Amino acid sequence: MITSVKNNKVKVWRKLHKRKGRIDTGVFLIEGFHLVEEAWKSEWTIDEIIAIDTIELPDWSKEVSVECVSDHVFQHISQTKAPQGIAAIVKMNEPVKLGGNNVLLIDSVQDPGNLGTMIRTADASGFDGIVLGNETVDLYNDKVIRATQGSLFHIPIFQANLKREIMELKKNGFNIWATALSDDAKAYNEIKKSDKIALMVGNEGAGIQTELLQLADTIVTIPIYGKAESLNVSVAAGILMYHVKIVASSN
Amino acid sequence: MITSVKNNKVKVWRKLHKRKGRIDTGVFLIEGFHLVEEAWKSEWTIDEIIAIDTIELPDWSKEVSVECVSDHVFQHISQTKAPQGIAAIVKMNEPVKLGGNNVLLIDSVQDPGNLGTMIRTADASGFDGIVLGNETVDLYNDKVIRATQGSLFHIPIFQANLKREIMELKKNGFNIWATALSDDAKAYNEIKKSDKIALMVGNEGAGIQTELLQLADTIVTIPIYGKAESLNVSVAAGILMYHVKIVASSN
Repeated sequence: MITSVKNNKVKVWRKLHKRKGRIDTGVFLIEGFHLVEEAWKSEWTIDEIIAIDTIELPDWSKEVSVECVSDHVFQHISQTKAPQGIAAIVKMNEPVKLGGNNVLLIDSVQDPGNLGTMIRTADASGFDGIVLGNETVDLYNDKVIRATQGSLFHIPIFQANLKREIMELKKNGFNIWATALSDDAKAYNEIKKSDKIALMVGNEGAGIQTELLQLADTIVTIPIYGKAESLNVSVAAGILMYHVKIVASSN
Repeated sequence: MITSVKNNKVKVWRKLHKRKGRIDTGVFLIEGFHLVEEAWKSEWTIDEIIAIDTIELPDWSKEVSVECVSDHVFQHISQTKAPQGIAAIVKMNEPVKLGGNNVLLIDSVQDPGNLGTMIRTADASGFDGIVLGNETVDLYNDKVIRATQGSLFHIPIFQANLKREIMELKKNGFNIWATALSDDAKAYNEIKKSDKIALMVGNEGAGIQTELLQLADTIVTIPIYGKAESLNVSVAAGILMYHVKIVASSN
């Protein structure tokens, strides 16, 4: 059992709190029973489990390397207010080829809660994949992971050059819907369906970068009937993903 | 100009950070140019503006009492990371009679960001009013107000006994839609429209209280196509409000 925060392994784990530490090692840290279980059930690879000695480990954990630590050490590597005493080191996934009919493209979103919530909604709505632009907050940020509630492990997802991905999607017959508040945008409920739709959302304040907006086939907006100036990006993405799934692709 | 944090007025303002202080005085604190301007343009009453001496006040502020304070005092009463140097004391509103065709009922929502985001979406989607149950997080919490982005001032909203409000809405011909994940719930896109709809959402974990769920005319759910267990409550509310506004009431 590891009881000292000066232990080398503990130092390495702790470095995973920062993006640099994750990139240097190609792994990231997740916490809590639910997330660890979701990672286990998925295609992702768990390198090892970190647990305090007093908790009851799930049955399947016998198949994974488990490192026991003291309460004190766990507190040291934990990033939650009420740690559950279980964490895991998970290997980052490689970019995959996107399949299916519905893809979510996320450009320059900064708030971890917004990103995590969009991943959760993309999973729920049955979208087939997610690409995060390089300007979007890091997927492996602990707040992002928590907000996904495990959906991170349910849907193909990776960070990439969005321009290149859009070109590739267009070649494969995808209609690129870019969300914007501009006057020449069409209301989402008045756009004709198409089989393959890639939905792109942008930064909380500035929206989608002009360079990417210009690659879109359709500029789409959600009508504002009241006095609000805009919608929260994760709410807008939710409305549009369910619209795409239920109305736009199925009619 | 007030330069001491021991000044009596400063002590009173500072007490507005807590619910008790707000209830004792019947006023609440808002911060930043945008929120103060939205409050001013609305029906709500600004008691006074608090500003550091170096900022440029908007023209209309001449019609309101303005209290100048030092940077140090402003920091003391501020609840934001990057204070803009302007705040206002606003009078709480009385409950109003709900009109229109679409009302949002919010039972036991605990996260201030979720509540604020739902208020913003209700405004954007053209809903006519919002009632918060007594178990829902306080409307005048600073994080709630920030997440509304000013929509708090655009739409009739009050905290009340939800059971009583539901009875009243039913008498006035409203169809009560309660969201739930239960098996006997109907998918929202398969429910027939009705003229007047009151949409009810519940707690992030436990959903709507049973006692209130039993008063609903329709139990509605958003289909989950992927492996996510549920949707974030503010995303679910957004999908349903836009559905009610665009599809359910207009067809």
